[in-house]
Amino acid sequence: MSTVTQSVEQAAAGARLLGLLARDLPPDRLTSDPARVAPYATDRSGAPAGGEPLAVVHARRTDDVSTALRHADALGVPVVPRGAGTGLSGGATAGEGNLVLDLSRMNRILEIAPQDQVAVVEPGVVTAHLDRAAAAHGLRYAPDPASAALSTIGGNIATNAGGLRCAKYGVTRDSVLGVEAVLADGTVVRTGRRTVKGVAGYDLTALITGSEGTLAVVTEATVRLRPVPVATATLAAYFDTFEAAADASSAITAAGIETAMAELLDGSVISAIDSAQGTALRERGAALLIVQCDGAGAQAEAERVAAVLAGRVTSLVVAADDAEADALLAARRFALPALERLGRPLIEDIAVPRSRLAEAVRAIEDISVRRGVPVFTLAHAADGNLHPIIVVDAGLTELPEAAWETAGDIFALALRLGGTLTGEHGVGTLKRQWIAEELGTDNHALQRRIKAAFDPHHTLNPGKAV
Amino acid sequence: MSTVTQSVEQAAAGARLLGLLARDLPPDRLTSDPARVAPYATDRSGAPAGGEPLAVVHARRTDDVSTALRHADALGVPVVPRGAGTGLSGGATAGEGNLVLDLSRMNRILEIAPQDQVAVVEPGVVTAHLDRAAAAHGLRYAPDPASAALSTIGGNIATNAGGLRCAKYGVTRDSVLGVEAVLADGTVVRTGRRTVKGVAGYDLTALITGSEGTLAVVTEATVRLRPVPVATATLAAYFDTFEAAADASSAITAAGIETAMAELLDGSVISAIDSAQGTALRERGAALLIVQCDGAGAQAEAERVAAVLAGRVTSLVVAADDAEADALLAARRFALPALERLGRPLIEDIAVPRSRLAEAVRAIEDISVRRGVPVFTLAHAADGNLHPIIVVDAGLTELPEAAWETAGDIFALALRLGGTLTGEHGVGTLKRQWIAEELGTDNHALQRRIKAAFDPHHTLNPGKAV
Repeated sequence: MSTVTQSVEQAAAGARLLGLLARDLPPDRLTSDPARVAPYATDRSGAPAGGEPLAVVHARRTDDVSTALRHADALGVPVVPRGAGTGLSGGATAGEGNLVLDLSRMNRILEIAPQDQVAVVEPGVVTAHLDRAAAAHGLRYAPDPASAALSTIGGNIATNAGGLRCAKYGVTRDSVLGVEAVLADGTVVRTGRRTVKGVAGYDLTALITGSEGTLAVVTEATVRLRPVPVATATLAAYFDTFEAAADASSAITAAGIETAMAELLDGSVISAIDSAQGTALRERGAALLIVQCDGAGAQAEAERVAAVLAGRVTSLVVAADDAEADALLAARRFALPALERLGRPLIEDIAVPRSRLAEAVRAIEDISVRRGVPVFTLAHAADGNLHPIIVVDAGLTELPEAAWETAGDIFALALRLGGTLTGEHGVGTLKRQWIAEELGTDNHALQRRIKAAFDPHHTLNPGKAV
Repeated sequence: MSTVTQSVEQAAAGARLLGLLARDLPPDRLTSDPARVAPYATDRSGAPAGGEPLAVVHARRTDDVSTALRHADALGVPVVPRGAGTGLSGGATAGEGNLVLDLSRMNRILEIAPQDQVAVVEPGVVTAHLDRAAAAHGLRYAPDPASAALSTIGGNIATNAGGLRCAKYGVTRDSVLGVEAVLADGTVVRTGRRTVKGVAGYDLTALITGSEGTLAVVTEATVRLRPVPVATATLAAYFDTFEAAADASSAITAAGIETAMAELLDGSVISAIDSAQGTALRERGAALLIVQCDGAGAQAEAERVAAVLAGRVTSLVVAADDAEADALLAARRFALPALERLGRPLIEDIAVPRSRLAEAVRAIEDISVRRGVPVFTLAHAADGNLHPIIVVDAGLTELPEAAWETAGDIFALALRLGGTLTGEHGVGTLKRQWIAEELGTDNHALQRRIKAAFDPHHTLNPGKAV
């Protein structure tokens, strides 16, 4: 059922666009049957669709993207680019009459050049597939969002996705050297380069990364690969309280140890994992901090971590081998599916300066009590990036007022602590009402002028991000 | 002597601007005496000044910058921001009637927060001073351009400066979390954040970094600090030929070893250092590769490096201690001053994919022979970033045609190998004639639209970069 009605002009433009696309695209590219289009209206955020999209273009090459955008832009039809739809902020939701541009079938790894430690990929390549292909050369693609098994490189670039390893290896932006991208009017541009360094011209690669499909549609990316570390060492530390675990993580940072990973789970998340997996991790403590060190000094660094943690933990387990370490990390990666068994998770994504992690944790617990809304929290602790998760009844079509208020309190907390309301998921539709407050009026106005420089008719992903 | 004459209108606007600046700036901010203004017409690139600048504003706070830009923008007077003037591409040269905005006196370190591993600094802080202040907390500022003892953070941000350590720790962009910047019309904006992650809005911090003063004037930066590594291990490897040394560097990368530094010097550079310093390094080989590993696994990694180099070298010296390692690196940092004793160095700055380093080295040698122009080459080898240096007679006011042709051949080589014409120095004025070729027409047009979104009247550093 449409929640937004189209004008007669919009409907006519949509019909005309369908005709042009049918004429100019190869035969298997277009889906316009409403029943098959409907699933493309929303994404994993569960954000409500704003209506019924017009159609889906399943692009297979850059030309398809260019053709679709050129016609849509000329006719004033909004276009929503989409990868695997695993976004958590509503960045790929498509409203009434929008054209969905599905890039998941542009999924070829075009090149892996081990000597240069780069790969050239199409946007629909699944993140974990690239990592696996690189592994055949002793390399890896470092950014590893929790959804890596499903999410695509194009979607990762759109949100500047983070993940578990970015404490040491950076976020997606740090691994993208250059892109081919299509502007709203169909113009194809290349940005960046194949070299690890380069400063010719403005850094459009970084500007497009994280722009949530509002500036251009990435059709190819040249990404950096890195050597698989020669060794890893993994510890699981359990604590009496979540705050003690957060404090311990800050203490590791303060000791000057650069861990590859520091994942923090509160007691409620551990319990949810236990229920879903039949484990009994919660018996060991009310909070879990999983730390991984890697590289030639992994063992020595893990010993330093253990020394910092001594006296703070209720239990400390050093993984005996890679299999045990992988099992620990699998539990962490299973956190979201475990929470999805309880209802619809509304996943927040704040980041705070690293020294304020414990303060943030304490304040989130206070907000939860005050609002009477349970909040499940996990964190990429070494980055100060917290995911407080509010789980609501999956059957609800509207979010309860208390959930919105809790989310609002959490965003206000992030800004008060000198942080941000999104560390790695993006603004999408769900956080858009708060973005101006974080950016400030003049920055926000500047961002809109940049948007206009790329997309003067607001064709690309309107109503998202800035 | 002016090489460019002003129109009557331009002269009137300049006179009016001087009156407004004298009225609105605190007393000690303005220099308009031509003799004292003249040195600000050029920078360390030695690029010829385009005339006589109007005056210099010595900003001490953001308000000064905002006031100067507001008036200059309204009157159509071009403004050239300037730090220490150590730029090597002519990015801070000031033409006839331009207003120079000197930021070197905004040189306070406003905050060092060891728990968050961030510092907040004014743009005129000398790079090495920040690094030293961080060291008091066991931290460091990772980017270390060879000019770190003189260059400023603001200048480093303007060029997205690299340096010796960026193989492992990234370039300036990777250490800048956020800035306060003044737009051409005097508007003050804040970009980025204090957290290590954050994706709210477009990444204006990355866009401003490397924009060579053409988008905004940075008046404050929040930068990332990192722990001083617990250990370092340094090797000096000498080779029969420069090509063999370049091949060896690629072999280290291919072996999956991430060195903190891999500095490559050809025989002519080594000889120049020997002449200047009274050393006898050239006797050990015709090329020198200095490799540093750091972190808890430094020793183990250095042993792997030594294993890769075995059989390739004429001599391999492992530094016995930090003092010996520092002496080696001091020799490298002394390369430019040593070449300056021979004449005026014209420093190129190409980067190529890492596997093509030896090919680039061989081709540069060929170009040198063909053009009959000696080329001194050093390289940040692990990044594929080469500095071929043409030394011309310091007394010449115009560069010889053969020098330009040699530079042109080197740029063409970089692009042919899939590289860039500037890895870390910027486009400035010296490389501007080649930039469109690297970017391509559509990218270049987009970059100009972005410039217009920031600076519609082209007030900021006109004639530079894009």
